[in-house]
Amino acid sequence: MEENQKKSALKEKDGIPQPEILNASSVQKVLLKRKNQPSAEELIAGILAQDKVALSRAITLVESTNIEHLAKANEIINGCLPHANQSIRIGITGVPGVGKSTFIEAFGKYLTSIGKKVAVLAVDPSSTISHGSILGDKTRMEELVKDENAFIRPSASGETLGGVARKTRETIILCEACGFDTIIIETVGVGQSETAVHSMVDFFLLLKISGAGDELQGIKRGIMEMADTIVINKADGDNVAKAKLAKTEFNRALHLFPAKSSGWIPNVTTCSAFEKTGIDNVWKIIADYFELVKSNNYFEEKRQNQNQFWMMETINEQLKSHFYTHPEISSLLEENKKAVQSNEISPFAAAMNLLEKYFK
Amino acid sequence: MEENQKKSALKEKDGIPQPEILNASSVQKVLLKRKNQPSAEELIAGILAQDKVALSRAITLVESTNIEHLAKANEIINGCLPHANQSIRIGITGVPGVGKSTFIEAFGKYLTSIGKKVAVLAVDPSSTISHGSILGDKTRMEELVKDENAFIRPSASGETLGGVARKTRETIILCEACGFDTIIIETVGVGQSETAVHSMVDFFLLLKISGAGDELQGIKRGIMEMADTIVINKADGDNVAKAKLAKTEFNRALHLFPAKSSGWIPNVTTCSAFEKTGIDNVWKIIADYFELVKSNNYFEEKRQNQNQFWMMETINEQLKSHFYTHPEISSLLEENKKAVQSNEISPFAAAMNLLEKYFK
Repeated sequence: MEENQKKSALKEKDGIPQPEILNASSVQKVLLKRKNQPSAEELIAGILAQDKVALSRAITLVESTNIEHLAKANEIINGCLPHANQSIRIGITGVPGVGKSTFIEAFGKYLTSIGKKVAVLAVDPSSTISHGSILGDKTRMEELVKDENAFIRPSASGETLGGVARKTRETIILCEACGFDTIIIETVGVGQSETAVHSMVDFFLLLKISGAGDELQGIKRGIMEMADTIVINKADGDNVAKAKLAKTEFNRALHLFPAKSSGWIPNVTTCSAFEKTGIDNVWKIIADYFELVKSNNYFEEKRQNQNQFWMMETINEQLKSHFYTHPEISSLLEENKKAVQSNEISPFAAAMNLLEKYFK
Repeated sequence: MEENQKKSALKEKDGIPQPEILNASSVQKVLLKRKNQPSAEELIAGILAQDKVALSRAITLVESTNIEHLAKANEIINGCLPHANQSIRIGITGVPGVGKSTFIEAFGKYLTSIGKKVAVLAVDPSSTISHGSILGDKTRMEELVKDENAFIRPSASGETLGGVARKTRETIILCEACGFDTIIIETVGVGQSETAVHSMVDFFLLLKISGAGDELQGIKRGIMEMADTIVINKADGDNVAKAKLAKTEFNRALHLFPAKSSGWIPNVTTCSAFEKTGIDNVWKIIADYFELVKSNNYFEEKRQNQNQFWMMETINEQLKSHFYTHPEISSLLEENKKAVQSNEISPFAAAMNLLEKYFK
C-alpha cells in the first residue's frame, strides 16, 4: 500500500492533482480537499501559509487548458504577485548525460542544509511527447523529494515552448509566494528552451562533463555565451585531472567572450555531484553573483526587462497564433511557400499576399 | 567639371538616382533616361543586359517609400527573380576601426582581378541618423568604385532594421539578375544587423584586429559563433607577431564551439588589406567553403530556409506593426506596462488585456 502510493505519486499527468510529499497526513489532506474544490481565495491563503498541497493544486490550475481553470488561475496569480519576486532564480542546463538530476539533488540538499527553501521546476516542451523526460522520474532525486524544505514539479506539458514557458513563469510566482527563496529551473541543453529559461532566471548555470570536443556537439550554439558559470561535473576518480584541464580550457574560451552587462565575469568550476564535493563552491559563486548584481542594481533592472519581454512575447505569440490559425490563411500559406521555393515570387511579395487577405 | 561630377556622385541621398559609374557616356544615358521615366519592363531589360544605371534606378525604386514606386519595384523584382540566385553571398562584419572599407576594397579588387563581378551592399539601419556611416564615404574605396566589374551601393535608409533588411534582400536579387556573381554585404558588428545579414548570406566573415581583450568588447555576443571564418586584419609591420598569436587564440576558441550544421569547420587567418597580403588566402577559404556546401547540398537548403525565414519574418513584423500602431493600443500599452512594473498584474495578464481590446 505504501509502495503503491509512492508509485502513484511518481506519475506525471493524471489530470488530477498529486500530493507532492509522501507522508500520510498530507495524503489525507488532499483526499479531504478533493471533495470540496477550494476557492481561489482558499488556495491563495494556503499558498501564503506555505502549504505545499495548496501550491500543487494552484499549479495544476495554471497548467490546465480548461477555460474555467484559467480564470481561477489568473485570480490566484494576481493574489500571489504582491508576495512574489523575493527569491533568487537559477537556470540549470546541460545535455543528457552530464548528471543534471544528481547535481540538482546534491545542490538542492546543500541549499536546504544552509536554511534555504528550494523549488525545482523544469522547462521541457518535449515532455508532451516523451511524457516528461526531465524531472519526470522523481526517484532520481530521492533525497530532495522527501525534504520538507524542497518542492519538485516536473515540466508543464504543452504544445508549444511559449505555452510551457508561460506556465513555468506563473509557477515561479506561486512558488515564491509560498515562501520558496531559491527557484531552480532545469532544462535540457539541446533546444530553444534555454533562451526561454535564460529570460526567466537571474543566473544561468551550464553543467558539463570533461572530455574535450565530442560532448560539446550536443550543446546548442550560443548557450556557452549565456552561462554565468560553467560547472564541470563528475570530477571524481580518474576524471579529476581531465576535469581540471577542461576547466582551464573553458576559462580561456570564456575570456574571449565580450563582457556581460551585469558586470559579472563568468567562471568555471568543477564538482562531483556523486561524491558531493565542490557543491559548496558552486553556491559560493552564485552568492557572489547575487551580491554583485544586487549592489549594482542589475538584478532589479533585469527582472523589469524580463517582465517587459514576457509581456511583449505573449502579445507577439498570440498575434502569430491568431494569424496562422486563420482558416483562409493556412491553405494560402502553403501556396505561397511553394511559390517562394520555386523562385516565382520573393519572400516579401508572398508575405504581402497573405497579409492583404488577413487584414481584409 | 570632372571634379564636380565626382563629388556629386559621392552623395548618398538626393531623392533622385545617381549614376554609379563616372564615365561621360553613362552620365549622358542617365540624363536622357531621366526625362522619360523608364517602365518596369525597360528597367528589367536593362538589368538583364547588365546595365548598372538601370540597376541603380531599380534599387532606388526598391528603396523608395512612395507607394507607386512600391508596385513598380515589385514588378521589377518578380521579373528579375528567375535570373537571380546564381551568386555567392558573403557577409562581412567587424567593429569600426578594423579596416572594413580597406579590406573590402582590397578583397573586391582581388575578386575582379580573377574575373568575378562584385556587388558591395551594406546593412546599417543607423545610417538614417548618421547619413550613411558605412559605405557612405565611397572615396574610401577609390579603386573599387572605378572598377567596371564592381558595383557599390550604400545602405538603404529606413526607420527599422526590418525595413533596411528587406530592401537589401531585394537589392541582392536585382544585383544577381544584373550579372553580379559575388555579393558582399557589409555591416557593423555592434548591433542586431549581424543577425539580419547572417540570414541573407551564404558565408559570414568576421574581421578583427589583433590585441587581445579590449577590442572584443565591441563585438556583440553570439557573433563569433556565427562566423565561418575570422580574418585578422592589419597583420603588417610590428603587428605580424601579435596577429599570429591572436590567430592561435581564436582558433583555440573556435574549437570549443559546437559543430556547424554546414559541416564546415570555421578557421582563422591573417591578412593586411593595406599591404594587400593574405587576401588570396581569404578567397581560398571562401572557395573551399562553397565547394563543401554545394557538394553536400547545404547551400541550397540554407537558401530555401532563408527564404522561408524572410517570408515569416515579414509577416510577423507586419502583424506587430499593425498591433502597436493601433490607436487604442498605445495608451493602454503604457498603462499595462506600468502595472507590470509595479507587480500589480503579471506580464501575461497585461498581454491578455491588450489582446482582448485589439481583437474586439
